[in-house]
Amino acid sequence: MAEHTVTFDIVSEPVQVKTGTLLSETAQLAGIDLNQPCGGQGRCGRCALQVTEGSVRRRSTIRLSDEDLAQGYALACQSVIEGDIKIAVPPQEKIERLLTSDRTAAEITVPPGYDYALDQDIQAVPISLTPPDMSDQTDDWGRLSTGLRQQAGIDQVQISLGLLQKLGKILRAGEWDVTAILDMHPTDQPLSTPRLIDVIPGKELIPPPLWAAAIDIGTTTVTVWLVDLITGQVRAQPAQYNQQISRGEDVVSRIIFAGKDGGQENLRQLVLTTINELLEVACKRVKTDPPLVTTDIVKATVAGNSTMVHLFLGIPPENIRIMPFTTTINQVPNLTAQEVGVNINPEGTIDCLPGVASYVGADITAGVLSSGIDDAEKVTLFMDVGTNGEIVLGSREWLVTCACSAGPAFEGAGVAHGMRASKGAIEDIWINNENLEPTFRVIGSVKPRGICGSGLIALLAEMFLTGVIDKGGNFNSNLETPRIRQGGHGWEYVICWGADTGHGEDIAITHVDVDNLLRAKAAIYAGFTVLAESVGIPLDWVEQVLIGGSFGKYINVEKAIEIGLLPDLPWERFQFLGNTAVRGAYLALLDSQARERVKEIASRMTYIELSADNTFYDAFISAMFLPHTDLSRFPSVEAAITNKE
Amino acid sequence: MAEHTVTFDIVSEPVQVKTGTLLSETAQLAGIDLNQPCGGQGRCGRCALQVTEGSVRRRSTIRLSDEDLAQGYALACQSVIEGDIKIAVPPQEKIERLLTSDRTAAEITVPPGYDYALDQDIQAVPISLTPPDMSDQTDDWGRLSTGLRQQAGIDQVQISLGLLQKLGKILRAGEWDVTAILDMHPTDQPLSTPRLIDVIPGKELIPPPLWAAAIDIGTTTVTVWLVDLITGQVRAQPAQYNQQISRGEDVVSRIIFAGKDGGQENLRQLVLTTINELLEVACKRVKTDPPLVTTDIVKATVAGNSTMVHLFLGIPPENIRIMPFTTTINQVPNLTAQEVGVNINPEGTIDCLPGVASYVGADITAGVLSSGIDDAEKVTLFMDVGTNGEIVLGSREWLVTCACSAGPAFEGAGVAHGMRASKGAIEDIWINNENLEPTFRVIGSVKPRGICGSGLIALLAEMFLTGVIDKGGNFNSNLETPRIRQGGHGWEYVICWGADTGHGEDIAITHVDVDNLLRAKAAIYAGFTVLAESVGIPLDWVEQVLIGGSFGKYINVEKAIEIGLLPDLPWERFQFLGNTAVRGAYLALLDSQARERVKEIASRMTYIELSADNTFYDAFISAMFLPHTDLSRFPSVEAAITNKE
Repeated sequence: MAEHTVTFDIVSEPVQVKTGTLLSETAQLAGIDLNQPCGGQGRCGRCALQVTEGSVRRRSTIRLSDEDLAQGYALACQSVIEGDIKIAVPPQEKIERLLTSDRTAAEITVPPGYDYALDQDIQAVPISLTPPDMSDQTDDWGRLSTGLRQQAGIDQVQISLGLLQKLGKILRAGEWDVTAILDMHPTDQPLSTPRLIDVIPGKELIPPPLWAAAIDIGTTTVTVWLVDLITGQVRAQPAQYNQQISRGEDVVSRIIFAGKDGGQENLRQLVLTTINELLEVACKRVKTDPPLVTTDIVKATVAGNSTMVHLFLGIPPENIRIMPFTTTINQVPNLTAQEVGVNINPEGTIDCLPGVASYVGADITAGVLSSGIDDAEKVTLFMDVGTNGEIVLGSREWLVTCACSAGPAFEGAGVAHGMRASKGAIEDIWINNENLEPTFRVIGSVKPRGICGSGLIALLAEMFLTGVIDKGGNFNSNLETPRIRQGGHGWEYVICWGADTGHGEDIAITHVDVDNLLRAKAAIYAGFTVLAESVGIPLDWVEQVLIGGSFGKYINVEKAIEIGLLPDLPWERFQFLGNTAVRGAYLALLDSQARERVKEIASRMTYIELSADNTFYDAFISAMFLPHTDLSRFPSVEAAITNKE
Repeated sequence: MAEHTVTFDIVSEPVQVKTGTLLSETAQLAGIDLNQPCGGQGRCGRCALQVTEGSVRRRSTIRLSDEDLAQGYALACQSVIEGDIKIAVPPQEKIERLLTSDRTAAEITVPPGYDYALDQDIQAVPISLTPPDMSDQTDDWGRLSTGLRQQAGIDQVQISLGLLQKLGKILRAGEWDVTAILDMHPTDQPLSTPRLIDVIPGKELIPPPLWAAAIDIGTTTVTVWLVDLITGQVRAQPAQYNQQISRGEDVVSRIIFAGKDGGQENLRQLVLTTINELLEVACKRVKTDPPLVTTDIVKATVAGNSTMVHLFLGIPPENIRIMPFTTTINQVPNLTAQEVGVNINPEGTIDCLPGVASYVGADITAGVLSSGIDDAEKVTLFMDVGTNGEIVLGSREWLVTCACSAGPAFEGAGVAHGMRASKGAIEDIWINNENLEPTFRVIGSVKPRGICGSGLIALLAEMFLTGVIDKGGNFNSNLETPRIRQGGHGWEYVICWGADTGHGEDIAITHVDVDNLLRAKAAIYAGFTVLAESVGIPLDWVEQVLIGGSFGKYINVEKAIEIGLLPDLPWERFQFLGNTAVRGAYLALLDSQARERVKEIASRMTYIELSADNTFYDAFISAMFLPHTDLSRFPSVEAAITNKE
């Protein structure tokens, strides 16, 4: 087969590839790490490169305007090499490292009454052994296990090969006084045999420092809480984008990427790198003498949606996106850090919290624990809208749950000028009713570069209430303002002219964007409807709405109700909880009874599969309007519209 | 520090080293793998190299004659580089790959009544699962574990991460019909949770092929028995020298080598390579369609002395040779093949049989099981004289054991012309009473190259009975034969003149050799004495003597009694059992009750530490004569001598 020379402007050496090679693979060969948020499906348009000499065969030109094509742009993941070419690589959007979760360093309250000795599965046990002599030649492990039995009443302890390899030296270094660190309950079986995590020479440090981590693997953001198990205090809580983002922004893109050659392992390494970096950062933030290192951490609980947990463990998630949408495992047995690849103590316990289904994972069971719905007297609606939208409805009597494939529109993906809630993002917006001119607030007080989730909700509400769009989301082209115009993707509304933006281009919202946002909000609202109907209660019986996830942190309830994303309930019933997943992981880490409760939550929750449900489809179609086809469901919005008219 | 150039004749590139570097390290740098049977202690003389230009500082010249020194020979492990030198590497003794255990391919009898379904811990369980659909989205692992519970009554199965990573594909490849391979009893606790070793698509193969291996890691020889678990038959039984031999011939040399930089890991890799090669060979010997591969093996039981087991597992054996002689572990928990590095199914069980003490290891407990002493009505003496000498005395009522540091003299080490029982070894010898001319038999019917253990015993007995040596082992220089002469190491007896040997050099036994053999036999006999005294019985109450190990296979009981190595009992009480360690490992592999019995044997045996025991020292000194200072202990020998006189 013929070979072709491909020259990239930012790389000195050209690469040789065969006819038919994808441009994205060619770039990878040349050492260029392209951003492929959609996982190489040709959906996002982020991997566009400019062909400056020669030509490529374009399988798809979606997301490229006629002008782009004229300039030679091609989607790297959709273009095939058929001859010698030269390529210019445009500067790609850089991910700003300023995260919402890092914006506030909230003090986390230790659960009242936390008692390390009673509640904690990890125990540090000081043991004094009699040194061996010619009249007692008992083997080292026999000596230590007898010590544990006689001095601490701990019988039948498990020891790993790794620890056996070090044991002789440790016992002698401590002159037969040692501190054993044990996981007293390493499996979720009642008669679980205690497992030795480490043995430390000496027994003076009482209580010894014992560190652990609660980890939430979000599709977008990974959060680590570093916990002192003796006091229960959270001592550091760094967060960082999940480095898998460059391989797809939503779970489906990640699953597709995982199916490619080497994709699975690449994604596993990316999330491990993210977690290991966060653990390093967390340890550096705590000042101890000697300095804390990640191997001082002896346990981690992990929350995350089912796809994230599968990728973290190197388990193929492929069946999660294929009917009938099954995971390989929902209740993962405890593993060791060494097996998984997390850089804490190699024998440290990795406890992945249990999930319920493909799209209701451990992030939700942890969220339920953290929000306390499973013990609530009031009928409670819990939602965690991150990259997916998961909803739980219930109380101490019953719990139903579903997952709406809302997509990441409210995280800025699938929207032309959408972006994450980082520096330069428009986070709130108002449109003047008279002249239709917008005012907005930008994160970081800089020139805007795009719009984040809360900004998009506000924008949709404002456009609807000022008549820029109608209840079907169609632009009103008859209004007298230059901001409503015909663009490359149909009608659009310009929020900020190029002269005033950070990148010099107009920031606008298009008809396609509005449609994506409508679908997202309709999916979530339809989820509420189906859950309420499944238990036969009207939505307004909901006595409290608890919103978890970074999504909820800065949104305006009024505006979210106006677009029909949230049900029309009195504002005081809404409460924003922040990252409930990591907080649930933290509670399960501290207290073995809380851990037991997550398991119970996972088995108590009734999962409603929406894609198998006609009710959902009908509810979705009805919710594709602003705020809804049935205006009587939104009396406060009805009143606002009527007042205006 | 100054650098010097060292040039080896067999390597093209010279190497640069600093002043003070050992010649052995320099050779290693140059890529030359020297034989160091004593572990680099300067004891064996095998690493001698010839300095052809320049000179080295010799720390020790033991084992080098004046002639050697004049020719420039130096022990690589004892010589320090202090200037530029050139080195000639003499062709080293090659290890012949013909082993005693490979000489006969004995048919092994399956224990009568073996029933795979009742006795075997490894079980293959066919399971038919209902495929998932939208009304049942149970996770793969939940589905399989429910299947195991409902269809086979197996509850709470453990699964590894490695298997979880493959599970989704396996279940679908088998279209939801699978065969689960389980270790039903993976720990020695009564309530041990079954562990999944593998899941194989399909369930047609009933019974499916199930393979396992019984492994004996000898200090000298490693033996593998490949077993079909369904029938219980041994299908191949290859043996090979333990590749660690090049790092020291006895356990003490190995322990010293393990203490060097990288030594521990080097020894681990060498024994793993030996085992993995034997597994390959074993699989090739069995003709199946498709061909058997090592990953078809799902379990291995391992016997070996404590040092061998520690080295196999990468556990430092250092304290085994330091007072008070402790191991790190005697009863190793089950491990997986992946953890240990054995190339069978990665999740296959590695079951190291339990040992008793530093010098009474799993080879002896397995030997006791195999020989059945623990259930014997007769007072039985069991000995396994391999590289070490371990002895067990007892019956179904009681068991005492000890280890005599006999050293490997009877394996040919520490004897100038000693060699292992391989091609070219003199294995039996007779000396003419009149002219003192020897006749001998050589393994492989070739010209002799040395003398192996059985030959040495015969030689010692013959020299004693013909008066070549006296009862103290001293040569009689007054006899009229050119065969008794003064050599480089004092008086010696020439067995074969250079003209008739395989290598052209005279084969002789020296005064030093005789002394080493006397020490070895005295240590073993003193062990018998101490054990008998510890339970208050005279040695001649012993009703049967069972001899295990390759050592015993070809020795002549009469001659062994004549030199006082074996107690003077009627010949019919002696029985040679061959490799009892591997046979014990095989029995424990087949039958969970036999495995339980080994554990019981290990805990029942009373270990007598000889080095803490004055009785032993006295007994040893008394036994340093031929056959013994107290001739009344050897009435048959007394009679023979009297007859002669």
